[in-house]
Amino acid sequence: MIVPIELLPPKPVKYDITIDALPKLSFDTKVVVVTNPTVAGFHLDRLLEKLEAKQLHVVTVPDGEQYKTLQTVEQILDECFEQKLDRKSLLIAFGGGVIGDMTGFTASLYQRGIDFIQIPTTLLSQVDASVGGKTGVNNKYGKNLIGAFYQPKAVYIDTAFLETLPKREFAAGVAEIVKMAVMFDREYFDFLKTADLGDEAQLKEAIRRSVELKAWVVNQDEKEAGIRAVLNYGHTFGHVVENETNYTTYLHGEAVAIGMVMANALAVEHGLMQPEEAEEVKALLEKYALPTDYTIENIDDFYEHFFLDKKSANNSIKFILPNGIGNHKIVKDLDETVVKRVLAQFGAKQ
Amino acid sequence: MIVPIELLPPKPVKYDITIDALPKLSFDTKVVVVTNPTVAGFHLDRLLEKLEAKQLHVVTVPDGEQYKTLQTVEQILDECFEQKLDRKSLLIAFGGGVIGDMTGFTASLYQRGIDFIQIPTTLLSQVDASVGGKTGVNNKYGKNLIGAFYQPKAVYIDTAFLETLPKREFAAGVAEIVKMAVMFDREYFDFLKTADLGDEAQLKEAIRRSVELKAWVVNQDEKEAGIRAVLNYGHTFGHVVENETNYTTYLHGEAVAIGMVMANALAVEHGLMQPEEAEEVKALLEKYALPTDYTIENIDDFYEHFFLDKKSANNSIKFILPNGIGNHKIVKDLDETVVKRVLAQFGAKQ
Repeated sequence: MIVPIELLPPKPVKYDITIDALPKLSFDTKVVVVTNPTVAGFHLDRLLEKLEAKQLHVVTVPDGEQYKTLQTVEQILDECFEQKLDRKSLLIAFGGGVIGDMTGFTASLYQRGIDFIQIPTTLLSQVDASVGGKTGVNNKYGKNLIGAFYQPKAVYIDTAFLETLPKREFAAGVAEIVKMAVMFDREYFDFLKTADLGDEAQLKEAIRRSVELKAWVVNQDEKEAGIRAVLNYGHTFGHVVENETNYTTYLHGEAVAIGMVMANALAVEHGLMQPEEAEEVKALLEKYALPTDYTIENIDDFYEHFFLDKKSANNSIKFILPNGIGNHKIVKDLDETVVKRVLAQFGAKQ
Repeated sequence: MIVPIELLPPKPVKYDITIDALPKLSFDTKVVVVTNPTVAGFHLDRLLEKLEAKQLHVVTVPDGEQYKTLQTVEQILDECFEQKLDRKSLLIAFGGGVIGDMTGFTASLYQRGIDFIQIPTTLLSQVDASVGGKTGVNNKYGKNLIGAFYQPKAVYIDTAFLETLPKREFAAGVAEIVKMAVMFDREYFDFLKTADLGDEAQLKEAIRRSVELKAWVVNQDEKEAGIRAVLNYGHTFGHVVENETNYTTYLHGEAVAIGMVMANALAVEHGLMQPEEAEEVKALLEKYALPTDYTIENIDDFYEHFFLDKKSANNSIKFILPNGIGNHKIVKDLDETVVKRVLAQFGAKQ
């Protein structure tokens, strides 16, 4: 006999992203703040001034992507157990994407899920990690291979935290903003061309549009089956660039900038984009001193790398290409010789 | 400025529980079976006869609750990565509750979630773990403290696997069945009084009713805020019994049987249950040779133990009591002296 089980869906997730000076936050529960020494050194005092809780504890984990591991998450979990957090307790992620991913993941695991709040302190995490619910860690097999989909209860984006951010890291965040504009919104792209993101009001406006676009995309496709893949524009090429340079030469956003230029070249080759449009994107990236040039030493090696990516496990590569500026097209099963001809535009001069 | 985010809920979870001889199962994806040496020794050959997959791998983890840890889950994850599972791959939990909890948890973590199927081989896991989506592991701070809510794609309940189950373990499963009947369904209770669960057809009928009741309860309350707590009938007392006897004397279901008898005594004391009804429950438990007697050496110690349970973190104990047979009542803030007077019924004779 068969018993059909149909479970009701959980309620829709609702939360607010506040883009403003960090307000006073008061909680009648236990709170654990997760941060790293760099962010804590610059900004922890200011956070603690704003924060009231029934019991407050700060966990500091080492700074850097190489510590985004299950071991670090276990360390955070242990501190949560030592603090005897209950199911109503709250975690606060205070840092960049690494802190956000690990804190959200820890919150998802603790007693099968407690609340967490994001206070992202890098531009990349402000525009990218505020929406989407992807949490997790790396392991020896690759990046973000272990994790959970888990949504925050609130996100506070305070651009004042960006004042201590290195210029290159700021630009890496801009690369993700440009990505959203090229994929989804020509008018937003034009705004970015003329905007001064050093100006607080214009920066906040750019962040607002970026998170709104991402929320729209995520709602189209909560599980990255279809349109959410478009958020990987620039990433298919960028991952290979990162890998070839051992993750030491470029920040992720910088590699994505190079990857977008490469994807644009492929789009031009396929008549999806005018050469002038590709130039427009390149010029916008260069306005923020993002790298747009890369020398591919070995075209065949570069091409083979596509197939090592976890997202192309079934041996067909999906390319996310712009379709003009402000629109996109997912293209599969491209001819190898065509792709290599485009890669050759970036090839080492003989 | 505030950007309100509202994410659409995921689709309702739907899956079938098949209560029958295990059918042929064929998958055009990679499959990893997770089991332990005991179950594998008795039944793996039979499973593999039924199973076809693009690529099939068996992971064997040590048998026992003490191995239900994050370390074992990491070991399973590592084997999944070695097998290069992709997002379409499938895990199969083949064993009791420990295997089911860890396999479901692993599936939830691998690339943020891949499918899994339950083939439970103990009566307890057939009636209890088939519905509810609770997955996870223990750690030094307690049981099931790290985990995720994650639903299977299908459950196959084949009572033939129970033929090698020790009698005590079978009875421990019956305890959970009796629990459901006492809490929710007088007619089901009457069925159990006359049924012969050694008969395959009647056993299947009992399992069917139990999983249907549990699905109904879970749908009332996916997050254990309200009615789902009723599933803890017998557990508040049972946990203390398990703890006092160092988890070595009684199986979990046996401790729950004792716990139900204690809860019933408290219900009688409060006029929620007639003494004859309490006797009826006790007689049904004894029909399956479940323990219904326990000597509390120290009433005060036993009482204090309630407050160490994770579910009473805020220092008020919720007692789940029968309200007659087939109905329940959650009672809070009971007078300490009344509870201790009831406990004294089980106290060591001076």
